Amino acid sequence: MHRVAVIGAAGYGGALGAGIVQRHPGLELTAVTARSDAGRRHDELYPIHRIGLVMAAFDPDRVADLADSALVAYPHKAAAGAVRALRERGLKVVDFSADFRLARDAYEHWYQPHEAPELLGEAVYGLPEINGHREQIRGADLVAGPGCNSTAALLGLWPLREHLRDAIVDIKTGVSGAGREATQETHYVSASDNVNAYKTEGHRHSAELEQELPDGVGITFVPHLIPVDQGLLATCYALTDGDLSRDDVVELLHAAYDAEPFVDVVDAPPHTAHVRGTNRAHVYGTVTGNRVLVESAIDNLWKGAAGQAVQDLNLMLGLDETEGLDR
Amino acid sequence: MHRVAVIGAAGYGGALGAGIVQRHPGLELTAVTARSDAGRRHDELYPIHRIGLVMAAFDPDRVADLADSALVAYPHKAAAGAVRALRERGLKVVDFSADFRLARDAYEHWYQPHEAPELLGEAVYGLPEINGHREQIRGADLVAGPGCNSTAALLGLWPLREHLRDAIVDIKTGVSGAGREATQETHYVSASDNVNAYKTEGHRHSAELEQELPDGVGITFVPHLIPVDQGLLATCYALTDGDLSRDDVVELLHAAYDAEPFVDVVDAPPHTAHVRGTNRAHVYGTVTGNRVLVESAIDNLWKGAAGQAVQDLNLMLGLDETEGLDR
Amino acid sequence: MHRVAVIGAAGYGGALGAGIVQRHPGLELTAVTARSDAGRRHDELYPIHRIGLVMAAFDPDRVADLADSALVAYPHKAAAGAVRALRERGLKVVDFSADFRLARDAYEHWYQPHEAPELLGEAVYGLPEINGHREQIRGADLVAGPGCNSTAALLGLWPLREHLRDAIVDIKTGVSGAGREATQETHYVSASDNVNAYKTEGHRHSAELEQELPDGVGITFVPHLIPVDQGLLATCYALTDGDLSRDDVVELLHAAYDAEPFVDVVDAPPHTAHVRGTNRAHVYGTVTGNRVLVESAIDNLWKGAAGQAVQDLNLMLGLDETEGLDR
Amino acid sequence: MHRVAVIGAAGYGGALGAGIVQRHPGLELTAVTARSDAGRRHDELYPIHRIGLVMAAFDPDRVADLADSALVAYPHKAAAGAVRALRERGLKVVDFSADFRLARDAYEHWYQPHEAPELLGEAVYGLPEINGHREQIRGADLVAGPGCNSTAALLGLWPLREHLRDAIVDIKTGVSGAGREATQETHYVSASDNVNAYKTEGHRHSAELEQELPDGVGITFVPHLIPVDQGLLATCYALTDGDLSRDDVVELLHAAYDAEPFVDVVDAPPHTAHVRGTNRAHVYGTVTGNRVLVESAIDNLWKGAAGQAVQDLNLMLGLDETEGLDR
Repeated sequence: MHRVAVIGAAGYGGALGAGIVQRHPGLELTAVTARSDAGRRHDELYPIHRIGLVMAAFDPDRVADLADSALVAYPHKAAAGAVRALRERGLKVVDFSADFRLARDAYEHWYQPHEAPELLGEAVYGLPEINGHREQIRGADLVAGPGCNSTAALLGLWPLREHLRDAIVDIKTGVSGAGREATQETHYVSASDNVNAYKTEGHRHSAELEQELPDGVGITFVPHLIPVDQGLLATCYALTDGDLSRDDVVELLHAAYDAEPFVDVVDAPPHTAHVRGTNRAHVYGTVTGNRVLVESAIDNLWKGAAGQAVQDLNLMLGLDETEGLDR
Repeated sequence: MHRVAVIGAAGYGGALGAGIVQRHPGLELTAVTARSDAGRRHDELYPIHRIGLVMAAFDPDRVADLADSALVAYPHKAAAGAVRALRERGLKVVDFSADFRLARDAYEHWYQPHEAPELLGEAVYGLPEINGHREQIRGADLVAGPGCNSTAALLGLWPLREHLRDAIVDIKTGVSGAGREATQETHYVSASDNVNAYKTEGHRHSAELEQELPDGVGITFVPHLIPVDQGLLATCYALTDGDLSRDDVVELLHAAYDAEPFVDVVDAPPHTAHVRGTNRAHVYGTVTGNRVLVESAIDNLWKGAAGQAVQDLNLMLGLDETEGLDR
Repeated sequence: MHRVAVIGAAGYGGALGAGIVQRHPGLELTAVTARSDAGRRHDELYPIHRIGLVMAAFDPDRVADLADSALVAYPHKAAAGAVRALRERGLKVVDFSADFRLARDAYEHWYQPHEAPELLGEAVYGLPEINGHREQIRGADLVAGPGCNSTAALLGLWPLREHLRDAIVDIKTGVSGAGREATQETHYVSASDNVNAYKTEGHRHSAELEQELPDGVGITFVPHLIPVDQGLLATCYALTDGDLSRDDVVELLHAAYDAEPFVDVVDAPPHTAHVRGTNRAHVYGTVTGNRVLVESAIDNLWKGAAGQAVQDLNLMLGLDETEGLDR
Repeated sequence: MHRVAVIGAAGYGGALGAGIVQRHPGLELTAVTARSDAGRRHDELYPIHRIGLVMAAFDPDRVADLADSALVAYPHKAAAGAVRALRERGLKVVDFSADFRLARDAYEHWYQPHEAPELLGEAVYGLPEINGHREQIRGADLVAGPGCNSTAALLGLWPLREHLRDAIVDIKTGVSGAGREATQETHYVSASDNVNAYKTEGHRHSAELEQELPDGVGITFVPHLIPVDQGLLATCYALTDGDLSRDDVVELLHAAYDAEPFVDVVDAPPHTAHVRGTNRAHVYGTVTGNRVLVESAIDNLWKGAAGQAVQDLNLMLGLDETEGLDR
């Protein structure tokens, strides 16, 4: 059994990561840590996952004693330091944050000076289905888990890449995507029976799209918050070269994903409820108005975070990619 | 007191129309009709509106005896016949359906052969804020209430019309927009904790946009169902001539709407919850990626249907446009 | 026009109180105050109410210059000091908190030492429909608005009082009842798709029931949080002397409430949605198993807080009790 | 591999039953049937379960060819005939309906003349945790799955049985409990942001409580519909002999359930969200007012229907009771 620690197990993504690891037949959950909730049992915060471990404060030596690999579910910036400490002690790491997803200049444009730039060279972008990343992940010691918005959007746009000139990505995301912190925005009274856009003037997740798609593709990216717990729908309006028919689009999607274990090309617009609590993506393509339309649905905490992290870890460890994930 | 009947008062739009008329200081609700619910008291279906009238089967002679004007809240096709019967008896009519919104050829392309084409000449498109319709409505005997999606989208795009080349309209609409009929789609278990697109290959509401916006503007229109009761957000991604800055966009919005009683230009992305239960629209504009972005929020049953119908009726009757609407 | 200030207008109850006052034909909203949100415009927090006033920090002299009466929507303990300061300056006050609802000993048992015990003598319990309070309120300068749970439960149990031996009150309350503070409990992800009891070992709202109902009636009171924004249902299981039939129960309800402007005795179990956004209570009674069952539905922010406060203020000022409230 | 058919796989309970069977390591899903949806693939209705089988019309000979056991998820009355046909062909059956839960006279009092009374003798009540049913289920060929309301209430009240005189059961149930049929009650617009009681004058689920609890215990039972998808909370207010302290109650609960694989005695009022998508029950007891209070939370489709049915089937087949259920 491969021993795994989850760093930052008090947040939604980390908690689910711990839950998946615990039920995974080839992995053993040996440590969980938390920052402000250190000292509390994990199942006190998340009874549903039934994890009796106490969340310790993060101590890299202790984690290195207990575990061979780690999922790091810290916010960006805080993540980089924890990842460095664990890599220095030889653990394989999947990081959930933005810290190792982007090249340094793009990262420092959207975020801040990088805390551990020396690790960027070994970091691999953890979306196995595109850009040949699956093979890179297999050999990697550090994988950067893609953002949830980027995961859905890239799965939608990747099959069109050779034809793509411009894409508008309209995201509808559930409230768990905003994290566990209690704010006016995440208050039930604010979030229920409501929809609104946010970060309308440039969301940093578009940087991942620009990095992974061909140069020169214009990206417009606007996220919207909807009264959903777990679920994310990326609506992609693509301007393409040539004159793609609906059949062409469907064929491109099937060519990209028919061999993929976690991506289904579906015949009707996908519902996020159909992938809730799973690591699957449902992708649908058609032509409407003067655009190619691709709708891509995931569970933001699964395929958009913790599920994908375990998919990556499976690859890194030479396990079956779907182990512990295909219920 | 001007006497008003509501035809089709058992549906969500008609029921709210009856409720607004009943509380309106210048109007008197004198008759309500229903089809399958005929014979039931209105407050049995809608206790919230406190209307004790029994819904009769539709009898145009009887309605003409009781009322001077009517709101007709039937589905398209059924509406045309009722409107004709009421117009023949001299009543002023605001129709909620699509039957009188479009020129005949567009209507027959998207719907079916028109049931009352002789009335199309006198019908006015009931969105007072655009295209000079307010003056037309003042003199009209038959007004076609715009669709809820079209209302939000047109309020968003109209200020850009002189610069507009292409627009993508991504609609997020609450479940009441699907009507009162109980279906698998509107079942709580299907609609809660979910989002999905529908009618992805051409929604007929785009015909209203093409009619009201300048010739040659390309329209792509995709509606999405979200777990909201009342509320509709139109996200408009516009490609424009010239190089509009964010300030230009904001200025265009203010120029269009600062004198409007029901449209607010807001400084941050609008929330549908902020206009729920009101006849208001909140419109927000900016520039993002390579597009002008306009977000336009309404309550689909108020500004998108019944509230706007009473706004139109106020104009038709020479009343203050806001009477009975500005709580 | 009678000038009214709202103290604590940043919370849900105070904000709605300000909104009702502003639309009230006989009142003028002249001042709003806030604690941590002082300095912000009210409509920045609550666009729906369209109140352009800046919320000032609380200064009783300034409030006394601007207003003749005040709604005080502070938490208990903080309320008492503000109420004293305003009463000393001659303002009539409706207080939303628990500070003036109970006799001193009951208050100090459930809460803490009282901050302004000298005012308890003039305070009147603000539920006009029971116990002769309406007349007391008419002559009062200080009215204590009842708790939302107590309002619903008392409206349900009061008509049975002469027969009542024991009552179990099972409360289902919407999340706005927990207040605007962002907590793990009010986070959308926690509160949606969930139901749970809280304060199962004695909720202090039962003290109001014990005070207002005859001596010796046993009260068991358990509140539950449900995924509703505004709405509260009190399910009352009553053990009664004698052998009340369903008809007897219905007759008692009608005798109590047929003359009441805001309480409807309904024929079927009430839905909170039927009173949402109104100052109404829907009360239903029957006999089931070996108990009298009364279900009582209100909007917790209206009849359970701000609406009832304005109802009280109308009485205190000699206005029509329903003015500004019966939309 | 034991071959299992699901009869009535188009409803919520049957569909989940099929999903659980399909993922169960010791069972093979060999047939699914439906009534009005016969001829459609199961995954067309329920993409989440990923079952590619076509739902056939019910043909008992065909089912007997394909399967050794069956889960029958028909409504009561329709179920009895299907169960008889399958029992005649030698299949072991777990029935989800009320048809085999009650003695004949109680059944015919609450429902209608029984369609297959000759099978009542062999039917066992399928709640393994109480009344010695586990051993009976192990030897049974026909098990009647308890109602969801009864499951939660009985798990709450059973540990108190030797002290129990009277119990009020206040049920809060999610909308999936009302079934897949689209009705005005289950319409999103009706069910969201609302709570209401229903069947206030005698719900037939109380018959199961009367049967399973000691003679003479008075039962008052009132169900409420809340805006939850999957989840059910039974709040039990018990009048007991003797003077049970909170510690006594907690001790009784632990004595009853500490050895149970699916029932957890919890320290704080349970949340239905903590058992969502699991076969677990969370039970909490205390003393409040003059009553013993027990709160019991389950997922109505899992422990309240399909999960419990597979738990029963595991017992009937000599498998581990938790196989396929403890994720």
